Amino acid sequence: MTETTDAPAAPAADKPVQVEENGTADTTPGQEEPQDKSPDKEKEEPPKEMRAIVLTGFGGLKSVKVLKKPEPTLGEGEVLIRVKACGLNFQDLMVRQGAIDSPPKTPFILGFECAGEIEQVGEGVENFKVGDKVVALPEYKAWAELVAVPAKYVYALPDNMTPLEAVAITMNYLVAYILVFDMANIAPGKSLLLHSAGGGVGQAVAQLCKSVKDVTVFGVCSKTKHEQLKENGNIDHLLERGCDYTNEVRKVSSDGVDIVLDCLCGEECNRGYSLLKPMGKYILYGSSNVVTGETKSFFSAARSWWQVDKVSPIKLFDENKTLSGLNLRHLLFQHGGAEYVRGAMNKVLDLWQNGVVKPLVDSTWALEDVPEAMQKMHDRKNIGKIVLDPSMEPKPKPATPAKGKAGKDKKQNSEEKKETKEEKDKEDKEKSDKEKSAEKPQENGEKEEKEEHVANGTDEGSQ
Amino acid sequence: MTETTDAPAAPAADKPVQVEENGTADTTPGQEEPQDKSPDKEKEEPPKEMRAIVLTGFGGLKSVKVLKKPEPTLGEGEVLIRVKACGLNFQDLMVRQGAIDSPPKTPFILGFECAGEIEQVGEGVENFKVGDKVVALPEYKAWAELVAVPAKYVYALPDNMTPLEAVAITMNYLVAYILVFDMANIAPGKSLLLHSAGGGVGQAVAQLCKSVKDVTVFGVCSKTKHEQLKENGNIDHLLERGCDYTNEVRKVSSDGVDIVLDCLCGEECNRGYSLLKPMGKYILYGSSNVVTGETKSFFSAARSWWQVDKVSPIKLFDENKTLSGLNLRHLLFQHGGAEYVRGAMNKVLDLWQNGVVKPLVDSTWALEDVPEAMQKMHDRKNIGKIVLDPSMEPKPKPATPAKGKAGKDKKQNSEEKKETKEEKDKEDKEKSDKEKSAEKPQENGEKEEKEEHVANGTDEGSQ
Repeated sequence: MTETTDAPAAPAADKPVQVEENGTADTTPGQEEPQDKSPDKEKEEPPKEMRAIVLTGFGGLKSVKVLKKPEPTLGEGEVLIRVKACGLNFQDLMVRQGAIDSPPKTPFILGFECAGEIEQVGEGVENFKVGDKVVALPEYKAWAELVAVPAKYVYALPDNMTPLEAVAITMNYLVAYILVFDMANIAPGKSLLLHSAGGGVGQAVAQLCKSVKDVTVFGVCSKTKHEQLKENGNIDHLLERGCDYTNEVRKVSSDGVDIVLDCLCGEECNRGYSLLKPMGKYILYGSSNVVTGETKSFFSAARSWWQVDKVSPIKLFDENKTLSGLNLRHLLFQHGGAEYVRGAMNKVLDLWQNGVVKPLVDSTWALEDVPEAMQKMHDRKNIGKIVLDPSMEPKPKPATPAKGKAGKDKKQNSEEKKETKEEKDKEDKEKSDKEKSAEKPQENGEKEEKEEHVANGTDEGSQ
Repeated sequence: MTETTDAPAAPAADKPVQVEENGTADTTPGQEEPQDKSPDKEKEEPPKEMRAIVLTGFGGLKSVKVLKKPEPTLGEGEVLIRVKACGLNFQDLMVRQGAIDSPPKTPFILGFECAGEIEQVGEGVENFKVGDKVVALPEYKAWAELVAVPAKYVYALPDNMTPLEAVAITMNYLVAYILVFDMANIAPGKSLLLHSAGGGVGQAVAQLCKSVKDVTVFGVCSKTKHEQLKENGNIDHLLERGCDYTNEVRKVSSDGVDIVLDCLCGEECNRGYSLLKPMGKYILYGSSNVVTGETKSFFSAARSWWQVDKVSPIKLFDENKTLSGLNLRHLLFQHGGAEYVRGAMNKVLDLWQNGVVKPLVDSTWALEDVPEAMQKMHDRKNIGKIVLDPSMEPKPKPATPAKGKAGKDKKQNSEEKKETKEEKDKEDKEKSDKEKSAEKPQENGEKEEKEEHVANGTDEGSQ
């Protein structure tokens, strides 16, 4: 069972339901409300069903499937949302790998971000009514046609904001707002070094920084993104991922920077602390679970000073420096920070109304195409938000994809790449898939093998 | 020699000058310009002289003497200030004890804060002219009738600000401003725990906090100060020094506070970190030099977690917390933070113009009475700023103070107390004083003996 007392959204999750494999003929185009299909199952009164993206076991892309699941029932203090758009975040990739602290047991519905319309309001909920357009940050289960979410994680949308805009904004700009305006406390004239500058949070941070006078943003990201990021114009100095960025920063600003945002993205960041000016702030953020010691091989390459070193508080005093951490998931679901986050969300929505926040959408995908969307984020190819749209038709799949293509042409387009990857995965994993226990995280060789093709994807395009 | 290349203010400091012991007949009332006295010394052309508070050796109050010293000569980039008021800060007490990193060799002129009028402008100084009213934060040498200060540590005063107001504001409100508005980044609805709530910085912090809506201030200080602090009205919840303050805070706010300001004032503070809410900020500030390992016995009682513990950055990430340090002296004189500090000073002056900053002066003293003023700070009896005024007449001293009083009556008034203390010191120290090397810090038993009567003075009334 994946349920917790806090989120009783799918009470019948382990009942047998009709399984629709990603991309199979069952998921026909135009089929938007599968739970309305005439029931042809064993049970006399089957629960109403919905499509949802389910993680069947921790590991690679094959563990992510669009399945039919019972519609969630509404608990006290919750609202039921008919989902129109879902946000893909880096932590979803980490959850898939099991590389996150306290993951639920598989199978469970993935996703932390969705937007849509309220269809039902639970007891004790006073701030919302049926028909309200909202965005929500549930603890899992966001990637489904219907989601039951505690109202404290739900935010009303301005009239003129679409669900797509809402998911493009919420998680990324919440994190960015808290980083830039609360923790870094940006002020005119300050300078900031940003890793993963091309990702969703990175772009949001750069945009917010540029709303403050004379702020200088240094952004580290893959060379392949530089051209488009130059067009976006929010990053003053683009640095190439893998370069000696401390040296490059000092060429421009010999005394370093005021703020370093470290998305826990690898040993490269080690050098960032030394770049801090006096009164400088070093801020860790992201989705890492290295704190729990459960780091998987996928992430172990990213061991960094913040994992092994400790800092003497008196050294911070001596050096006039600040060290901070932001883990939004912990803040919302473990630390009771919902009211704090709501305050930040209100500010973000204000900034959107004022035209400061302009969400950047990389691409929109059908639920069935989530593996390809995940792969794009892994490959650090997205600039801005990756969105899932439950009403969207999946890309057509060839009935018999040509074999033998895999790995031959690195410049093949992403769809071809996915197909051949899936082919390869299928061949490689057929046996091990059968051995998978749907109730138990995969933490061994099987997963590490999977990680091969997504390695080095921890850096950017991530947040 | 106390001179550094940075502050060539008293080139003849080790030449023999006429010594005027604190309170001796030589310091006659009304004698404001001692360097104008007819020279009756060995040299034909003695340098012009001024009165200054000199530390003759690290240790107790007897090492602090008003002496005649050569007037400083002006270096490039400096201004010469005719001093009208000096600020006493806790770090002056630490310097006197030698409990500070990298102190100059004795003898040297004490003091980090003074205000007055510019009498001369050095080469390369563009922002100031003769006659400007200014306040300055020199690295030592502020407690004299004339001070030469690098212009980067000098701030022009508004027309309507007196020198006394200037020294009552500058150091305390600079520190408070940086703590409250940059590091803590206070916002409406936040809560803050403040140690040493009765001291100069403490009162400034409370005042600044109260300029922000719905901020709750918890202040820890001696019970004796509670009545007056209640009248001042800036502290919402007064807690008694020595009480179980974490428990008291939780009675009012069960989930703790958003900000803890720890003035490095003792093991009591240990418990503060556990009071932090998620997204909470723990800020170390003050004048401690524990970082250098040169902590003297006077301060060793105050060993605390920030001296012995280290914090894993990933723990801050996991817990959504921030750890910061502010050491204004390092910021100004070691870290090149003059421009940053000037920015903060401009904000402080704006707040004063707008009536938000209302400096609180505890008392004003003649240079000759500085030992008594220092004792008051040590005893945590001041509420607000202790100011020295070079034009003020010293308190009259009885020619032959009655012996045998010392230690008899703890409720004797502070002036009597000082006299008897001095008497006692004189008896106790006569021999060891003679052994003192004026060039060498006292780090041994002689000093620890002195510390007896100022022990436990590290907590409040301090900043």
